[in-house]
Amino acid sequence: MKSVAINGYGTIGKRVADAVAAQDDMKVIGVSKTRPNYESRTAVEEKGYDLYIGIPERADQFKEAGIEIAGTVEDMIQEADVVVDCTPGTIGPQNLEMYKKAGVKAIYQGGEDHELTGLSFNAISNYDDSYGKDYTRVVSCNTTGLTRTLSTIDPIADIKKVRAVMVRRGSDPSEVKKGPINSIVPNPPKVPSHHGPDVKTVMEGIDVTTMALLVPTTLMHQHNIMVEINNEVETQEIIDALEKRSRVLVVDASEGLGSTAELMEYAKELGRNRNDLYEIPVWRESINVVGNELYYMQAVHQESDVVPENIDAIRALLEMESDNEKSIAKTNKAMGIL
Amino acid sequence: MKSVAINGYGTIGKRVADAVAAQDDMKVIGVSKTRPNYESRTAVEEKGYDLYIGIPERADQFKEAGIEIAGTVEDMIQEADVVVDCTPGTIGPQNLEMYKKAGVKAIYQGGEDHELTGLSFNAISNYDDSYGKDYTRVVSCNTTGLTRTLSTIDPIADIKKVRAVMVRRGSDPSEVKKGPINSIVPNPPKVPSHHGPDVKTVMEGIDVTTMALLVPTTLMHQHNIMVEINNEVETQEIIDALEKRSRVLVVDASEGLGSTAELMEYAKELGRNRNDLYEIPVWRESINVVGNELYYMQAVHQESDVVPENIDAIRALLEMESDNEKSIAKTNKAMGIL
Repeated sequence: MKSVAINGYGTIGKRVADAVAAQDDMKVIGVSKTRPNYESRTAVEEKGYDLYIGIPERADQFKEAGIEIAGTVEDMIQEADVVVDCTPGTIGPQNLEMYKKAGVKAIYQGGEDHELTGLSFNAISNYDDSYGKDYTRVVSCNTTGLTRTLSTIDPIADIKKVRAVMVRRGSDPSEVKKGPINSIVPNPPKVPSHHGPDVKTVMEGIDVTTMALLVPTTLMHQHNIMVEINNEVETQEIIDALEKRSRVLVVDASEGLGSTAELMEYAKELGRNRNDLYEIPVWRESINVVGNELYYMQAVHQESDVVPENIDAIRALLEMESDNEKSIAKTNKAMGIL
Repeated sequence: MKSVAINGYGTIGKRVADAVAAQDDMKVIGVSKTRPNYESRTAVEEKGYDLYIGIPERADQFKEAGIEIAGTVEDMIQEADVVVDCTPGTIGPQNLEMYKKAGVKAIYQGGEDHELTGLSFNAISNYDDSYGKDYTRVVSCNTTGLTRTLSTIDPIADIKKVRAVMVRRGSDPSEVKKGPINSIVPNPPKVPSHHGPDVKTVMEGIDVTTMALLVPTTLMHQHNIMVEINNEVETQEIIDALEKRSRVLVVDASEGLGSTAELMEYAKELGRNRNDLYEIPVWRESINVVGNELYYMQAVHQESDVVPENIDAIRALLEMESDNEKSIAKTNKAMGIL
């Protein structure tokens, strides 16, 4: 039973904590927050996690709020086999020194640069690269989405070049201070965007160019993908491969799943924790090979698709399972992933 | 002085009426409505247009509302040299019989199929095709946007293939019953979309593939365009060509024009009638040639970009000007287009 600390109990951190708790070969030894907010309170009172604080000077604030704390983040990581760092992007690099000093392994999220760890992670495409290593980075939600489907297609399609336009949710559902409300924002306005190079950190040698923008929705990202291929592939072969791949869902717009809103409703019907959709849904109607090009559209639940990847990354770093497919299957079963 | 009737005084029709009224070589001899709403009232009371009604049985409704009518649509077209048909998509085909019977020329909008007239129109790319003809169709706002920039790029870039992802506004600002509010909707979910073939109706022989979706905004469409080219072209040559082209605006995200909302604010600062932005704004930062591919992002004000095209189409059908660039310049000057 390995001990996992989650540094940063926000959108991703709280989900990783629950996913760790759902496994039978690892346990949550603590989660951390810097503020005594509703997430701090529910971590302790609803979930029963030991709560450590990122800023020791704020102990009084937690005390005043009546939220019990178990110590500081430095205390927490002493007991851990691995830390999953889910702190905001700018804090990660400072934390790395602390992890090194404590001799604890660490997993970062896609908000950090690949250079911080020199290693990035996707359970399907490059699990082995992180096996036994000290530090890795689970790529961002968008990169995870692109990588899941592209690495499923890669073995049957001789990929020449990938072009993707990523229509991103403006902000997460709880981010009340962010927009846009009624606008389309090229983001970045510079083309190509950084997402293409990020895919290359987990799929070596692939040629991917991306364009990205923000739109006024909070639910999911949406990707429009064009794959130039060198060999002859049938549309049905692509559909079959995507259907066989776990963590990818081929969905039918014609069955009432024609939008990101309906996909989120589907996750509710599946009874998912926090209504999460860990899988990447691909619209069946959109999958189409025309000449030497494959087209498809997919969506990404930005709050949750990386969560099972973090679990697999834990098993890779701690050498708990050498076969990526076995780790994936184990994670999926514990989390109820289709 | 040519006489123009506008059949259908809605989003496009009311703008075409004002644009016709702004020219010195044509005049509005009537506009039509089927309902005594605020648009009917302002057409008569604010703009001073003669109002004709599309459904004669409703004359009493207009009388009750105190809105003066001049007759029926059939009366209106008797006096016209040309009718600009801005009625909803399904009604156009029925109207064609009426126009033929009355011996009046007609211009349709992009909501109709190309097959209705067998001829489609864009002032830059194929003005001559409609010269002296009886019926033509101004292509849709999206097709107009794609065609304006692609036909500007075409003379300097040897275009091999165009890929475009069109992020469409969910509904127009006044369409209170339509959505989506918080969702991304592949629309159509089938790839490729019909927009690519529509570009071919005004740019013969071009290879264009499009994907399209709806997002929760009312202001503008946004296009993400990837142009594969056979020859060597510099990014600066593309920027220069787009800057020289009227009805295209190269805009800087860095100057505070980084979104469709800011572009609409810009139109207000320009003092435009109804805050319209007739030009296609292209983000300078997005224009980038990488190897044999040109990338750029643009926006389309769906309510107004086709309006000047309708004016040029009138001049083409009525043989008022044989040189498309002269018609474009004349239209632009009267409408204050940059």
